Amino acid sequence: MNKYVVGIDLGGTNVKAGIVDEATGKVVVSKSIKTNSEKGVEDTFDRIANLINELLNEKNIDKSEVKGAGLGIPGPVINFETVTFFANFPWERNLNIAKILEEKLELPVKVGNDANVITLGEAWMGAAKGYKNVLGLTLGTGIGGGIVVEGKLVEGFTGAGAEVGHIKLEADGRLCGCGQKGCWEAYSSATGIIREAVLRLRVNKNNLLWEKINRNINELEAKHIFDAAKEGDKFSEDIVDFAARYLALGIGNLLNVLNPEVIVVGGGVALAGDFLFDKVKKELSKYALSVTLEGVEIVQAKLGNDAGVVGAAALLEI
Amino acid sequence: MNKYVVGIDLGGTNVKAGIVDEATGKVVVSKSIKTNSEKGVEDTFDRIANLINELLNEKNIDKSEVKGAGLGIPGPVINFETVTFFANFPWERNLNIAKILEEKLELPVKVGNDANVITLGEAWMGAAKGYKNVLGLTLGTGIGGGIVVEGKLVEGFTGAGAEVGHIKLEADGRLCGCGQKGCWEAYSSATGIIREAVLRLRVNKNNLLWEKINRNINELEAKHIFDAAKEGDKFSEDIVDFAARYLALGIGNLLNVLNPEVIVVGGGVALAGDFLFDKVKKELSKYALSVTLEGVEIVQAKLGNDAGVVGAAALLEI
Repeated sequence: MNKYVVGIDLGGTNVKAGIVDEATGKVVVSKSIKTNSEKGVEDTFDRIANLINELLNEKNIDKSEVKGAGLGIPGPVINFETVTFFANFPWERNLNIAKILEEKLELPVKVGNDANVITLGEAWMGAAKGYKNVLGLTLGTGIGGGIVVEGKLVEGFTGAGAEVGHIKLEADGRLCGCGQKGCWEAYSSATGIIREAVLRLRVNKNNLLWEKINRNINELEAKHIFDAAKEGDKFSEDIVDFAARYLALGIGNLLNVLNPEVIVVGGGVALAGDFLFDKVKKELSKYALSVTLEGVEIVQAKLGNDAGVVGAAALLEI
Repeated sequence: MNKYVVGIDLGGTNVKAGIVDEATGKVVVSKSIKTNSEKGVEDTFDRIANLINELLNEKNIDKSEVKGAGLGIPGPVINFETVTFFANFPWERNLNIAKILEEKLELPVKVGNDANVITLGEAWMGAAKGYKNVLGLTLGTGIGGGIVVEGKLVEGFTGAGAEVGHIKLEADGRLCGCGQKGCWEAYSSATGIIREAVLRLRVNKNNLLWEKINRNINELEAKHIFDAAKEGDKFSEDIVDFAARYLALGIGNLLNVLNPEVIVVGGGVALAGDFLFDKVKKELSKYALSVTLEGVEIVQAKLGNDAGVVGAAALLEI
């Protein structure tokens, strides 16, 4: 009888592995180690396998009780096994990572893109549990996304499904970190919102936000902007309105394409809560067809810090 | 042994039914009658069932040789059976059309949105045969779309999946027939392209296009614009560039969201051929991430006038 599933969140700096209870989606135990990708693929996955074996021993879990391991990585993944390229690691292209880890771990392994699996985790045991058509958004440094259609993750032909942060909301608009212009994340990610605030603060410092950051632009975080706006600072609320308008534009476009039943929003920007999302919902009717707005729910992500591990584990579950 | 499948294309004015050979996707026989939706649902489907029985008799095909009937309709469809509302007919909401026709026809029936099933048909036996991740676009009066992921049609939660003509490419941009602003089809459909030409012709009549339409704005069709541009008319080529830029912007956004392996483009505007699509492809690298452009093919639709019937039949096949 399977009772557990392993989830691994492979990041540029750290890799976090956890043992997840299949019935509840709760993390029983987890631990992080340095990724040290420069030591090579074999070395990294040897250490990951050792880490998992150590966690299993610690909890007296036999491998016969483990269904398998899911792995979320920062890069495009195809067939739930092959990473076409690693954005941040000096590893070769088209590596069958599932096979590499399966041999070391002696368990079935499935691999997914890290942004995609976060949505999968929310659909398995989080805010979208029980829903079959889910759009997940993570509003952080960038905008990540994941799409679940009829319970299945949309990987995409080259593993780049749901790169929604790079849909263009302005032709030849603001420069994005990807090198292209007008990307959604250049407007509505934490980075995009901070950029807009910096631009505005250059011409107007007579506002609460400027005081909140101690008149030091380097202290500025998205949270300051939302906090000042909630305290009635018109200057800051205008910036929130700017972000909300682009959030509605991007979400509206995705509603018209995918017509999901629920949108799960996570990441730092989502912590602004209803203050932000009430504004987004108000704007949405301008951009989404009414038929795609019917009955759709916009909810906050639930998995928090465990999202990467639980999401990776979900690769084995749905 | 099943050898045939019925396809029905239900339009506002006419309904066309055809018998399709399962092995080849070819239409063996087809016939159109008036829809006359004002006579009511029962009357319309009685006449459709009679039409199909007549076609089967004509070809001496027994119902035991027919797998079932697919029906494409202009409206949102859920569970391949229920039409949530009819855009053009005075029929009630949430009708289980599959059940209504099944009883009359004594064959299994599946229902799909008309724009969606065109893509399904191309994936079954047309330009996208053999592909599992397909985006279909029909550039005509509007822009219709269909999305196939892992061989399955994306219906959407309320049946409005792939309403891609209404993604917004300009916030608060040009007014669209849907009542919203900035929709893709307000720029790159035949209607959108003609509108742009009309606007430009009001201020400049010193061009080949004006001569081609016999100095009569009412004669203007999209074809005139493409023809004049191909003959070297700079005024007309600028309009084509305008349409191509918005086509690339819309297609680029869909590539970043869906990462399909093939895009099938049909409809009147697609007849402009490589002259238009070479321009679109050139612009695409500004809007689509390079990973979503890798290996993707953009091809012309193949099913032509049979697209509606063959697409509807495909509902039973994939």
